[in-house]
Amino acid sequence: MTDRILASAAPLRAFTRDVFRAAGIAEAQAALTAEALVWADLRGHASHGVMRIPLYAGWIEQRLINLKARPKVALRKGAVVQIDGDSAIGPAAMALAADTAIAHAREHSAAWVLVRNHIHAGALGHYAERVAAAGQAAIVMSALRPMMAYHGTRGAAVSTNPIAIAMPGGIMLDMSTSASSRGKLGVAKATGAPLPPGIALDRDGAPTTDPHAAATLTPMAGFKGAGLSLMIECLTSMVLGHPLVAPALADRALLDDVRQNSLLIAMDTGAVGEAGALAGNLDALARGIKAQPRAEGFDEILMPGERGAREFARRSRDGIPIPAPSWRQIVATAAKYGVAAPAVG
Amino acid sequence: MTDRILASAAPLRAFTRDVFRAAGIAEAQAALTAEALVWADLRGHASHGVMRIPLYAGWIEQRLINLKARPKVALRKGAVVQIDGDSAIGPAAMALAADTAIAHAREHSAAWVLVRNHIHAGALGHYAERVAAAGQAAIVMSALRPMMAYHGTRGAAVSTNPIAIAMPGGIMLDMSTSASSRGKLGVAKATGAPLPPGIALDRDGAPTTDPHAAATLTPMAGFKGAGLSLMIECLTSMVLGHPLVAPALADRALLDDVRQNSLLIAMDTGAVGEAGALAGNLDALARGIKAQPRAEGFDEILMPGERGAREFARRSRDGIPIPAPSWRQIVATAAKYGVAAPAVG
Repeated sequence: MTDRILASAAPLRAFTRDVFRAAGIAEAQAALTAEALVWADLRGHASHGVMRIPLYAGWIEQRLINLKARPKVALRKGAVVQIDGDSAIGPAAMALAADTAIAHAREHSAAWVLVRNHIHAGALGHYAERVAAAGQAAIVMSALRPMMAYHGTRGAAVSTNPIAIAMPGGIMLDMSTSASSRGKLGVAKATGAPLPPGIALDRDGAPTTDPHAAATLTPMAGFKGAGLSLMIECLTSMVLGHPLVAPALADRALLDDVRQNSLLIAMDTGAVGEAGALAGNLDALARGIKAQPRAEGFDEILMPGERGAREFARRSRDGIPIPAPSWRQIVATAAKYGVAAPAVG
Repeated sequence: MTDRILASAAPLRAFTRDVFRAAGIAEAQAALTAEALVWADLRGHASHGVMRIPLYAGWIEQRLINLKARPKVALRKGAVVQIDGDSAIGPAAMALAADTAIAHAREHSAAWVLVRNHIHAGALGHYAERVAAAGQAAIVMSALRPMMAYHGTRGAAVSTNPIAIAMPGGIMLDMSTSASSRGKLGVAKATGAPLPPGIALDRDGAPTTDPHAAATLTPMAGFKGAGLSLMIECLTSMVLGHPLVAPALADRALLDDVRQNSLLIAMDTGAVGEAGALAGNLDALARGIKAQPRAEGFDEILMPGERGAREFARRSRDGIPIPAPSWRQIVATAAKYGVAAPAVG
């Protein structure tokens, strides 16, 4: 018995869709969720991949995910769009938001699309990439409940609120505002591997490297990461009038709240600059950066998103490795809904 | 002789305006520049304050700053505006950009305003605050020439590209993408104080705490800061077709280039949410965060921008302290143009 299985993307996607379908999610929403999770696995972000299936299934059983959700455009005003996420499974609301941002930015040259009240979005890069593939610059951010220390607090006060920025052609940054991601903490809990120092605090606010003792993540770069996370809560939840942080700080029971608010900003790059010059300029930028003298320990200099794009190509060809304990949990979850696991290597 | 002088804001502002006016900058542009520099000093950011006067004067003498500049709107397309900065002294172009963003976001609910080719903007918070004061959410970013290591490079490959995010009511994050700012390095060079560890590399790419040996700043949070800086170059310079990084990497003479490109995104917060709910929600957020149990060494938890706002109030009342060596350089620069220094404490 090996410590990991190897799954092909297409059958893994169909299986994931079938599990959510069997759990009661509408067909199209189940397909979008499968696409988002397997995309993250292909990019090498296991923490946002199919290992989330048991977690999402639990949220479905608790009805935190609305099985009858119909995410829809609630308001259009100039370049601004508000989408009511209707507590939908995240990818269903976010895919609508990305497509709406693309269409709206085609019409208005730029779009500011807010999504109120959806469940876990998964990897934001998936939606930023979707917008960028339409020839637009994309900025995507999400606000969640507190799970990270703010600068100067002992426990969780803000979230690890992620932000993704993407350009046509594939340069894409997708990062959390924490020193490390909650998903990576989940992977460490699953494998038992110790955490790098500096990324987590225990229940008493003391630093820890034990994934099982970790209670609170720390912000990246101190006040900068903490401040950026707080500003994401402001740009999304505060503007929408749908706060996530303050209610959870007042009532700790809400720390389990799985709702999110998101913002997608899109800009049609064809609106300014010389037509056709963008691709060449981006290529020259990448060549210039990659040709720089390398620091000790670096064999190569990578552009934002380049490692993920390579992994995507490799895993699309060779299969997606999934730790055996995660896979067993996924298969057990699927079995509850009568869905058989695909053949894996 | 003390090691610092104390200047009142109003006479310091008039003096600064008079120096730039005498150096050949148009009256209105000189006034905007004085306003921006003294604003930074009042907020406690000396590195972006009047200590820049000798530097700017040098750029004027070298004609890197265009004395005849007339920054203007070059293109409007839907929610997107392009401003031609015309190599103007930064605050002249950025104040126009902020006012344009406000007016455009009033009309289109959101605005994406690009500024091509202006000289040093100063503290971006000044413009973010201006937009926020008009009831809009603001995201402001600037791209400059390489002066910071990229993740894995030995020397400068990207800039310390700053970003400021502000909300109506005063919550504002204003940060560089470097572990520390170039301006703070300048302050350390002026005072001779050693640098904190981890913020700078010497000419050979080795870490240093000697401000005089420091050649390259390091990014905040490793690949995240480096990636965010690169994405700011993409969102501004690449979209505008006016690259700053790649040309300077190909021709090191351009590392002295003082041109910048900027992006201001503004959103009319009245377009969504419940009317009047924003201020109360922001207040509840601040109260919730500030009431959290504090980590060791923290007497208080501050919101983004709160320290600067307090300093602004204190210095507006008590005066602005300026290190004596900086003040002597400023006075000497002014004397060259026949402008007398104001009385200081």
